[in-house]
Amino acid sequence: MIPTPYLLFLGDAPDPLAAKVAQGIRDWRPENAVGQLRMEGCRADMRLPDMTLAEAREAGAKTLVIGVANRGGVISESWKAVLREALAEGFDIASGLHNLLRDEPDLVAAAQEHGRTLHDVRVPSVKYPIASGEKRSGKRCLAIGTDCSVGKMYTAMAMDAEMQRRGLPSSFRATGQTGILITGEGVPLDAVIADFMAGSIEWLTPDNDPDHWDMIEGQGSLFHVSYSGVTLALIHGGQPDALILCHEPTRTHMRGLPGYSLPSLEALRDTGLTLAQVANAECRVVGISVNTQHLSEAEAEAYLAEVEDRMGLPAVDPYRQGAGRLVEALEAL
Amino acid sequence: MIPTPYLLFLGDAPDPLAAKVAQGIRDWRPENAVGQLRMEGCRADMRLPDMTLAEAREAGAKTLVIGVANRGGVISESWKAVLREALAEGFDIASGLHNLLRDEPDLVAAAQEHGRTLHDVRVPSVKYPIASGEKRSGKRCLAIGTDCSVGKMYTAMAMDAEMQRRGLPSSFRATGQTGILITGEGVPLDAVIADFMAGSIEWLTPDNDPDHWDMIEGQGSLFHVSYSGVTLALIHGGQPDALILCHEPTRTHMRGLPGYSLPSLEALRDTGLTLAQVANAECRVVGISVNTQHLSEAEAEAYLAEVEDRMGLPAVDPYRQGAGRLVEALEAL
Repeated sequence: MIPTPYLLFLGDAPDPLAAKVAQGIRDWRPENAVGQLRMEGCRADMRLPDMTLAEAREAGAKTLVIGVANRGGVISESWKAVLREALAEGFDIASGLHNLLRDEPDLVAAAQEHGRTLHDVRVPSVKYPIASGEKRSGKRCLAIGTDCSVGKMYTAMAMDAEMQRRGLPSSFRATGQTGILITGEGVPLDAVIADFMAGSIEWLTPDNDPDHWDMIEGQGSLFHVSYSGVTLALIHGGQPDALILCHEPTRTHMRGLPGYSLPSLEALRDTGLTLAQVANAECRVVGISVNTQHLSEAEAEAYLAEVEDRMGLPAVDPYRQGAGRLVEALEAL
Repeated sequence: MIPTPYLLFLGDAPDPLAAKVAQGIRDWRPENAVGQLRMEGCRADMRLPDMTLAEAREAGAKTLVIGVANRGGVISESWKAVLREALAEGFDIASGLHNLLRDEPDLVAAAQEHGRTLHDVRVPSVKYPIASGEKRSGKRCLAIGTDCSVGKMYTAMAMDAEMQRRGLPSSFRATGQTGILITGEGVPLDAVIADFMAGSIEWLTPDNDPDHWDMIEGQGSLFHVSYSGVTLALIHGGQPDALILCHEPTRTHMRGLPGYSLPSLEALRDTGLTLAQVANAECRVVGISVNTQHLSEAEAEAYLAEVEDRMGLPAVDPYRQGAGRLVEALEAL
């Protein structure tokens, strides 16, 4: 677990999109972020107090989280100077960058000198078991997508937040770098060794109270040939009681695969449910989450109405409309 | 690649079953084995010439292959003495044991001293790419099973051997420890990092002549919750043109999962083909391979006839009947 609260490091982010991790923390766990640290030329702004390292320590921050993607896959010397200073000031550092903090000798030396920890959330820190398939208590919901990056994490986060708002017991379970940095814990599933993928998800979503829901962060897609194995391990390790289908209707081909078209929601429902029922015969598809960001308000409404009618399931865009109806569909199970 | 030919180390195998790896080499690549080395108390026999290390070197052996499982997960001191001597005699050593040769300081030191290589085939030695999904030339066949350990490797090996016998272009592509030791190369898929599973299979089965068949070793099962993700990555990375369904009819539950029953061959066909056609729309299920070792001859014949009639596909036990009809089904595609 990564010590909270955080100071969000935005570095010299060239644009707001580069600061996706910081934005996620700001949106979903604002209580985890005491402030932001921006360098010369930074073009992202989380609308949090700008703080020096010393001010953030004073405000209680325990970890400097790298909330921004770096350019060209190297940790620049200008970043390094700030990171070394942060370690000296008593911060841990957490990062989901591809190039690891632990591979930077000066950061390792500074962390050792000051007794701090470097959290590379892309690398598993746990020896996960092989999945046993044993039935666990409590309930689990998993979002599966027609493609990668269609809003599965957003959907799970929004449903978890809505559950909390209603006073219902729920936990968001992170399975990717961004989710882990937002919540401070989870499984970096894409970096787990093949044999232990499903077991890592059993570990992540253990026995719980009968009415408690784990909202498991989805990954990849059963229909995305690069990552489908990760998705199926998530379905079988998670043994969900409820599936949410996620879709982005304007996409013309699978992400990163120009020759591959998206499956229909019906195909996703049928294949996803067949496979999910191997691990949990009671599993049901309860709703559809559509990312309508590229549609006008009127187009989005028409599209959602058409899908809802065709599929016989509540179809919502949780960003535009909130996740209330999806949570109600869970509660109705 | 592991240098061939081999001397097969049978150690103090308590029974013939413990020497499964040696048996596989003996059965499928007899030209790779110049002899066997057995220690006091060994109860396995490959009916190969018993040789000392020196005799085997003289006969041209380049690698000592550990063809036997060890007891209790430790490499015993009595084995170690032979292994150190083998390195001194000029052998490489290859092993699929869970406990790695490279974790034994005395073996590492002896290998360094004598300029030899320790091949731990459980550990990937290649940095695999993320799968691109691009269509490759040549043809590919993959065996998928209703469960783990139902004869997928045997089926692919038997089909490859039958292709060779008929003078047809074919390569067995190993995806597990035993297969890699038998052929000297392959991908240890269960040890690959999640994100690179499908890419490792693309790497393993590259572009080839239009009439060449890769016989890809299957792993796990889409219906085995512990390993299904590995299986799906194999299907999508392999983009097979032909699927063979594998089944063992007397099994009462999924291997290692007492609460899980086996899927029907129809369910395997439908789900397997749906997913395979994501990567290759032309993929077809061409035959069924049944492991009838626990049935009498008459029971086996009756069972195969019933399956063949029900499924409308050739159903054979390649161990009893050879793989001829499966190869003919491929050629008819």
